[in-house]
Amino acid sequence: MFEQLGLIGCGLMGGSFALAMKRAGLVRRVVGYSKSPSTTERARQLGVIDVEAPSALLAVSGADLVLLAVPVAATESTLKAIRHLINPDVLIMDVGSTKRDVVDAARRVLKKDVGVFVPCHPATGREVSGVENADADLYTGRQVVLTPIERTRTVQLEQAEALWRGLGCPVVRMSPETHDAAFAAISHLPHLLAFALMNAITSQEQGSQFLSLAGPGFRDFSRIAASDSEMWRDILIANREELSAQLGHFQRELGVLQKVIDGGQSEDLQRLIARASLTRANWRLASGASD
Amino acid sequence: MFEQLGLIGCGLMGGSFALAMKRAGLVRRVVGYSKSPSTTERARQLGVIDVEAPSALLAVSGADLVLLAVPVAATESTLKAIRHLINPDVLIMDVGSTKRDVVDAARRVLKKDVGVFVPCHPATGREVSGVENADADLYTGRQVVLTPIERTRTVQLEQAEALWRGLGCPVVRMSPETHDAAFAAISHLPHLLAFALMNAITSQEQGSQFLSLAGPGFRDFSRIAASDSEMWRDILIANREELSAQLGHFQRELGVLQKVIDGGQSEDLQRLIARASLTRANWRLASGASD
Repeated sequence: MFEQLGLIGCGLMGGSFALAMKRAGLVRRVVGYSKSPSTTERARQLGVIDVEAPSALLAVSGADLVLLAVPVAATESTLKAIRHLINPDVLIMDVGSTKRDVVDAARRVLKKDVGVFVPCHPATGREVSGVENADADLYTGRQVVLTPIERTRTVQLEQAEALWRGLGCPVVRMSPETHDAAFAAISHLPHLLAFALMNAITSQEQGSQFLSLAGPGFRDFSRIAASDSEMWRDILIANREELSAQLGHFQRELGVLQKVIDGGQSEDLQRLIARASLTRANWRLASGASD
Repeated sequence: MFEQLGLIGCGLMGGSFALAMKRAGLVRRVVGYSKSPSTTERARQLGVIDVEAPSALLAVSGADLVLLAVPVAATESTLKAIRHLINPDVLIMDVGSTKRDVVDAARRVLKKDVGVFVPCHPATGREVSGVENADADLYTGRQVVLTPIERTRTVQLEQAEALWRGLGCPVVRMSPETHDAAFAAISHLPHLLAFALMNAITSQEQGSQFLSLAGPGFRDFSRIAASDSEMWRDILIANREELSAQLGHFQRELGVLQKVIDGGQSEDLQRLIARASLTRANWRLASGASD
């Protein structure tokens, strides 16, 4: 049980975290700050936060738990804004989709205090954003990846782990590097491909006609293309090295497929598709997804 | 109302068509044939067809409506097998996902009788196959594309259109060429990308670990990768020219995205993502998809 959550960023991710923590009885009071005063006010009106703070620093004042729920590119400046009120007993977490850049920023800014910061990535999200869409169930059942470094303090790490489990989240730990490679493969690259596909269709004169014929397969495949452009701009740039490596793997496999298609090599093509199909089917079984 | 449907191919597509036609009261009797005798038998046991035919030719005998529900690559041989029983009053349709190759096969085999053949593509499907999964609702509400050629007989074309509307399907007409370009863009290319992504992940040592972290975005994006390898082998090869053209458009847009990511050009990247996001959002509104 925490006494006071200092919430920096009262959007979808931050707001949902505050609601979930309160519902689970894991926090007594939430003091919130958003860059836009109207967002902070709205968060209070909606009961997502209890008190509006006029600055990030004041949101942290008196908090035993701090959540940074800001775009990953704003992590460093946010940490700078609050570092003067950090004490060794506070737990600071983030919810960013990339981890190496966040860890690097934390090392640079927090220096000897970096141990109180536990880098977190809850694997959740929505195509909508904003505090109006905050939902106490956004995190329920979603996997949370913790990427502690050698200087991370054990007590904070264990607090963080217990907290996420208390919200109903399975927790895994891995290095920031492995995290970034994994999410480049399973999330950032798929987003990039979906963006490129949409733009490729729009760039054609007949694009609108093509789209008018699209059905459920296209709907599912392209759903992530509707994601927030500011958030994804930051993620793709922050993780560009791993993304580029994953794009390399992808282009190699695409090239192999293209070659057998152009050559009319039926058997080889069927084998390659069957391999993809089997991987997807096994993933579905392992992940417990309904389809 | 048709007297007798000759169904060639009693799998998911053919079986669902038979069930839908019977439920709508649009056909009196269904005579079915599948390459595998056990499939034909199973279709009869399940009540999908009324009578088993020992050959494609005998399934067509006495039919005033014939549906080819075979892999697109088998269209030509199937038409050859039945051409001796084709009369000017029968309506022959297919349900293939590509149309230029089907139309070419029909011209070659049916010659002066090609007018009785109405090429159809109902935009539906499932990741499962087989007569056991046949569903009277598979076609309900799904768009059907008809790709008549100049020799297609008006009477058959209008019969086909009325029939699909009778099953609750909006019907559109276009040329086989436009159809193939459109479906390369909105269906065949997305499948190819999903196959390549799955194979790119599997090809890496840490692939299984990566997959264990994948969430709902990945689930939706990769769902089409679970598709049937035989069916998709045929589609991708049959439509390789249009697919290659669409892949060209895609690679250009992907290259543009990659360039601005590598260059850290935040504003340009956000603009490109916003363009994709807006296209997807507009498509959702226009298509009536829930998300």
